[in-house]
Amino acid sequence: MAKAQIGIYGLGTMGSALALNIAEKGFDVAVANREVEWIADFIREAGPLGARLHPHEALEDFVAGLKTPRVILFMIPSGAPMDAMIAAVAPLLSPGDTIIDGGNADFHATRRRAEEMAARDLHFVGMGVSGGEDGARHGPSMMVGGSEHSWRQLRDILRAIAARHEGDPCVDRLGPDGAGHFVKTVHNGIEYADMQIIAEIYGLARFGMAQPPAEIGAMFARWNAGPLQSYLVEITAELLGRTDPATGHPVVDVIKDAAGQKGTGRWTVIEAVRMGQAANMIEAAVGARAWSAEKETRQAAEARLGGARGALDLGEEVLADAFAAARILGYAQGFRILEAASREYGWALDHARIAEIWRAGCIIRSALLDDIAQAFRGDLPAGQLMLAPSMAAQLTAKTPALRRVVCAAMEGGHAAPVLAAALGFHDTMRQGWGTANIIQAQRDFFGHHGFERLGQEGKFHGPWWD
Amino acid sequence: MAKAQIGIYGLGTMGSALALNIAEKGFDVAVANREVEWIADFIREAGPLGARLHPHEALEDFVAGLKTPRVILFMIPSGAPMDAMIAAVAPLLSPGDTIIDGGNADFHATRRRAEEMAARDLHFVGMGVSGGEDGARHGPSMMVGGSEHSWRQLRDILRAIAARHEGDPCVDRLGPDGAGHFVKTVHNGIEYADMQIIAEIYGLARFGMAQPPAEIGAMFARWNAGPLQSYLVEITAELLGRTDPATGHPVVDVIKDAAGQKGTGRWTVIEAVRMGQAANMIEAAVGARAWSAEKETRQAAEARLGGARGALDLGEEVLADAFAAARILGYAQGFRILEAASREYGWALDHARIAEIWRAGCIIRSALLDDIAQAFRGDLPAGQLMLAPSMAAQLTAKTPALRRVVCAAMEGGHAAPVLAAALGFHDTMRQGWGTANIIQAQRDFFGHHGFERLGQEGKFHGPWWD
Repeated sequence: MAKAQIGIYGLGTMGSALALNIAEKGFDVAVANREVEWIADFIREAGPLGARLHPHEALEDFVAGLKTPRVILFMIPSGAPMDAMIAAVAPLLSPGDTIIDGGNADFHATRRRAEEMAARDLHFVGMGVSGGEDGARHGPSMMVGGSEHSWRQLRDILRAIAARHEGDPCVDRLGPDGAGHFVKTVHNGIEYADMQIIAEIYGLARFGMAQPPAEIGAMFARWNAGPLQSYLVEITAELLGRTDPATGHPVVDVIKDAAGQKGTGRWTVIEAVRMGQAANMIEAAVGARAWSAEKETRQAAEARLGGARGALDLGEEVLADAFAAARILGYAQGFRILEAASREYGWALDHARIAEIWRAGCIIRSALLDDIAQAFRGDLPAGQLMLAPSMAAQLTAKTPALRRVVCAAMEGGHAAPVLAAALGFHDTMRQGWGTANIIQAQRDFFGHHGFERLGQEGKFHGPWWD
Repeated sequence: MAKAQIGIYGLGTMGSALALNIAEKGFDVAVANREVEWIADFIREAGPLGARLHPHEALEDFVAGLKTPRVILFMIPSGAPMDAMIAAVAPLLSPGDTIIDGGNADFHATRRRAEEMAARDLHFVGMGVSGGEDGARHGPSMMVGGSEHSWRQLRDILRAIAARHEGDPCVDRLGPDGAGHFVKTVHNGIEYADMQIIAEIYGLARFGMAQPPAEIGAMFARWNAGPLQSYLVEITAELLGRTDPATGHPVVDVIKDAAGQKGTGRWTVIEAVRMGQAANMIEAAVGARAWSAEKETRQAAEARLGGARGALDLGEEVLADAFAAARILGYAQGFRILEAASREYGWALDHARIAEIWRAGCIIRSALLDDIAQAFRGDLPAGQLMLAPSMAAQLTAKTPALRRVVCAAMEGGHAAPVLAAALGFHDTMRQGWGTANIIQAQRDFFGHHGFERLGQEGKFHGPWWD
């Protein structure tokens, strides 16, 4: 039997889809799974692709079925299961072999694992995979962190299975060790903000402009045909138009307004704050989900504080422009976090390339990412995406709409925390002379912390200490 | 020579002040310091109090000079220095002795140290000390986490030196291990939000209402005479009235608007997010400091995006009411974090008591804390401070002013991220029917995550999966 070019361990939703995708592109894939009884079903359901899929029950056979240097992709829960599998498989491997973690792992764990594997002459790749099951099956966006050696082993397979934007495969090696998983984490953080902006605009149209869901869906569908095109806009248009078969109501009206989250949004916020960044839009999106989960508390608060929301006089165009401005600011925050991590961990991340591999396959894919990639390849004043000429021009044109929408929302008692955060970020960053002199004066007054004087080096204290 | 009731190691600003405070209350204090040459100076400068201060150069002598079971307060940098000192001193101690860390330590480290010490029959106390140097010298607020045994050893000394609110000493044992340091961390997070609210109101008055600093200071002084009384309002009134001797300008006009931070604000945000909370006002305050430090970026942004701020038509009363509403919401967020940690770590924190020991001595001391303590002792719908009758009444009365101020600020292009965050929190929590149904629909659409239906148990998927 021919040895396989890659092994996939873990045949859940994502692992199965990736295995089928790789087999379809003509590669031989060894497959294994903790629950061995799943394997035969998987091969049977694969149909003709089954010829490229080589099942193994024992880990030893699975490893022995791979060409050397080996490449094994683990699609299993991150955390303890990953460490257990590494411990089990590493003794079976040879120098130069590569283990890949394709889950949403904490990049700190990926860095640790890469270091531990390197000490055994093995390679460890942390690979972010975005696009859900459908993406994994037909073309995901993949963010690879690992050695150049591993990338040479992997790139033909990954380029073959990746989503493509005008022919360019949406996959690349972004840096060593945790770089891929970190970029995927921030991708998800941006996704949280994008989703929440859409939910807030829905709320303004629904509760402030009395539009039924299908009408709001039609608006998003129109947006999706223009510069606001994005996968999340597209699916929101689609889902707002759907009816619940059981009740005949719009499906969104039967869904409990309590959002779940799995961790990457929180990780983005925590890492940003730890590095001294402030991604207030992502923070607000993570926060909105947390508060949404407290439905009983919100109901109790409505009974005591009142839940009235006023009518809004906002047209479709002003909402679209507000969305455009907020989205740019959200991406700008995401890339600021990436830049901070790139400096802290010496990753030398290529922001333009990251924007490029997000243009297709992943959940945040959008027309805007093409503009962002171009912006990163051009003039970037102060290293800020929001100051790139094309982005600054859009912000100048569209921030007035964002301002109008946020003011109207707040006046009417509508919650729009991410849109408000976007404006707060914009208005703070565009003011060369802010108000933190007051903070510094207070800190010096009560804690003798000292402050800088304008235009003077050194540490000074106020006259209250004389 | 009489043995000392307590030993203090570390004669920096805070350690010296605490030693003098304790000596003044009639206790004998053994003192030591890493740089032994400081010790004699300290004793000399202590004047008559020196009779109660017993200096030691060698750690062995310092320990031998203490009554048993011993109590040693370390006032040294947290982190590695604390671990090094524990390693050095622990072998000299006997079962039942207590080591106290009086610095701003990460409560996770405090929990670890308490566990390590317990394994050696020693006690470890994490104690938050607030009030700055002046507080430490004449009456701090102290938040103690540790064993009942340690508290019995400590309480007479701590009650003697603490600040007092109508006779009640502002110190208590709040729970085991990290409870004291965690409460101090959240105290500082609330402090960040309070300071930033004041800075934002200053900005609106200065740049939107063209008031000079002294006039704004006079406004804060008037506020400090009423229900808005607080130490931070008091010192802001004071510092806004001061003139820079070197230039004759208001001193705040020569201070660079780039705020520093030492970590407790970030810790509060990180721990809140980790526990699934969203303290968006504290997040915004930490973020405002981070952005302020990027002064060059802000200047570059002003040149490209424009920094204009419009005139505001806001009176003193509407600003005062907005401040009152925002402050309640900030405290509500702080206590929500405390409640989450209390549940996670089994601390059974007494929120009323926490509010009480913050009423004097600490940086956030204010008239409001007395109301908050009473609110916690009364009816608390859904366990929420903001829904306590007295708080809900204030919010109902004053949130319209907050709304007016935030709308005006945003319309005029003023940055007021914490005031806006307060309103966003309020408006999200008071809406029993929000917009997270859209998030859940999106998550199910692209990732098959499932959702709850209103009023039905279980996990469901949308018709897009049929």
